Amino acid sequence: MTSQAIGYIDSGIGGITVAREALRQLPHEVVYYVGDTARMPYGPRPKEEVLKYTWEMVDFLVKKDIKMLVIACNTATAAALPDLRAKLDIPVIGVIAPGVRGALRATNNKKIGVIATAGTVKSEAYAKALEHKDNAVRVSQLACPEFVQIVEANQSDSPAAATLIADKLAYFADKDIDTLVLGCTHFPLLDQTIGKVMGEKVTLVNSGAVAIENVSAMLDELNISNSDPINRAKDEYYTTGDVTAFHTLASRWLNNDDLNVQHLAMTSTGLKLED
Amino acid sequence: MTSQAIGYIDSGIGGITVAREALRQLPHEVVYYVGDTARMPYGPRPKEEVLKYTWEMVDFLVKKDIKMLVIACNTATAAALPDLRAKLDIPVIGVIAPGVRGALRATNNKKIGVIATAGTVKSEAYAKALEHKDNAVRVSQLACPEFVQIVEANQSDSPAAATLIADKLAYFADKDIDTLVLGCTHFPLLDQTIGKVMGEKVTLVNSGAVAIENVSAMLDELNISNSDPINRAKDEYYTTGDVTAFHTLASRWLNNDDLNVQHLAMTSTGLKLED
Repeated sequence: MTSQAIGYIDSGIGGITVAREALRQLPHEVVYYVGDTARMPYGPRPKEEVLKYTWEMVDFLVKKDIKMLVIACNTATAAALPDLRAKLDIPVIGVIAPGVRGALRATNNKKIGVIATAGTVKSEAYAKALEHKDNAVRVSQLACPEFVQIVEANQSDSPAAATLIADKLAYFADKDIDTLVLGCTHFPLLDQTIGKVMGEKVTLVNSGAVAIENVSAMLDELNISNSDPINRAKDEYYTTGDVTAFHTLASRWLNNDDLNVQHLAMTSTGLKLED
Repeated sequence: MTSQAIGYIDSGIGGITVAREALRQLPHEVVYYVGDTARMPYGPRPKEEVLKYTWEMVDFLVKKDIKMLVIACNTATAAALPDLRAKLDIPVIGVIAPGVRGALRATNNKKIGVIATAGTVKSEAYAKALEHKDNAVRVSQLACPEFVQIVEANQSDSPAAATLIADKLAYFADKDIDTLVLGCTHFPLLDQTIGKVMGEKVTLVNSGAVAIENVSAMLDELNISNSDPINRAKDEYYTTGDVTAFHTLASRWLNNDDLNVQHLAMTSTGLKLED
């Protein structure tokens, strides 16, 4: 039973940073990943739409008998986590609460920056959760939707991207933050550039990496770690968008060319594997 | 209801490093701490004895209506966690599983060192749990009971302590580790010296700090965070040993002179507050 996969969902390729952390921290655990690349980005969409698309991905994975679900997308976590938790009988882990916990562990001066999509910033999910845990914390938020496009266009290493990132993050110059939450799962793919701009006194918090610690804790608590790592099944990746483009990006970020990527069609009855 | 305290137990003063992390990461949450200083160290004691002493501390705290229990001691976690989990109806968090998760998050080369008491090393709790999660991990363990005595004797900053620590840790010189788990809650009080000896390429994992992330996650999952932080009750500290000595050390490590420390008598019916 416990050899079942853990499911990961994202609006596109960003959640691959969370899957990457899972493969690194929990290599015995099988990854099933769905990226809704055809309908990304979720950031500017209304909450109801994000909720609907998220459920389509979840329904597909639940039929594949996953033992746990990770919402590897901040926008979908903000929009759908309570609903998914209420209706699913498997554990559901989002990325916002782990990001909050990682930030509170990292900060010394209690001044915390958050970069995210417009949707996540508007929801104030990070600011509310941080202040709920510690009302002395001061949060500075900045929407950086351009960063998502840089990653999805495979432009992370371009000089133009570095300039744009430096220009955007200049916002934090007078904020005295010692911790910056990467509040979108795309952003760890830009962590070297972001780290250089922010300087070594600012700790970057990868919400996805902390979320995988949370997954690991849940596997312990429920005693559902993979009991047969020797016969570990192969990981499976699905995208609603272009398979080749997804394969190119995911292979690069996971440093693995041998990925099993398949296309999902968007139908009136949900996401379906194409014959 | 949720303004109840979280209980912390340790064989002595070491668990103060875990309480310190709780006060830093979760300042709204009230700390009740019991240190069994009169019977420390637990490291060399038989498991049955550690179990008995641990239950005496737990029984005292449960009567004080704690909402969660943190075993802020690796030796007691190794000896008593399953029994406490089975018999208590509040969540119980140990420090070993969090230390394991923190190490797997930190390591890149999968060569992990663990320093702990003789009891924890002998139990192989860390090595077993690390290999359970990732069978490519290589673990090097070293018992450092002397480090506990250095801390309890308030000698952390002495030149003799620095020499002893460097001599002991020379064991890891040819082990190529990139991560060192501080597998005893006393050891974060020596982290600057240990960090200097190990060099900047080795990440030190403070199991207690990760354990508090776990506490934070559990508060979220069960929705039992303190709902009235404005009227937060005062923390309470108890020791079976000398109150003045405990106060001196705890005040220093918590950077707070205004601690409420009381003595607990060891009686045939358990630990009792003295009149």
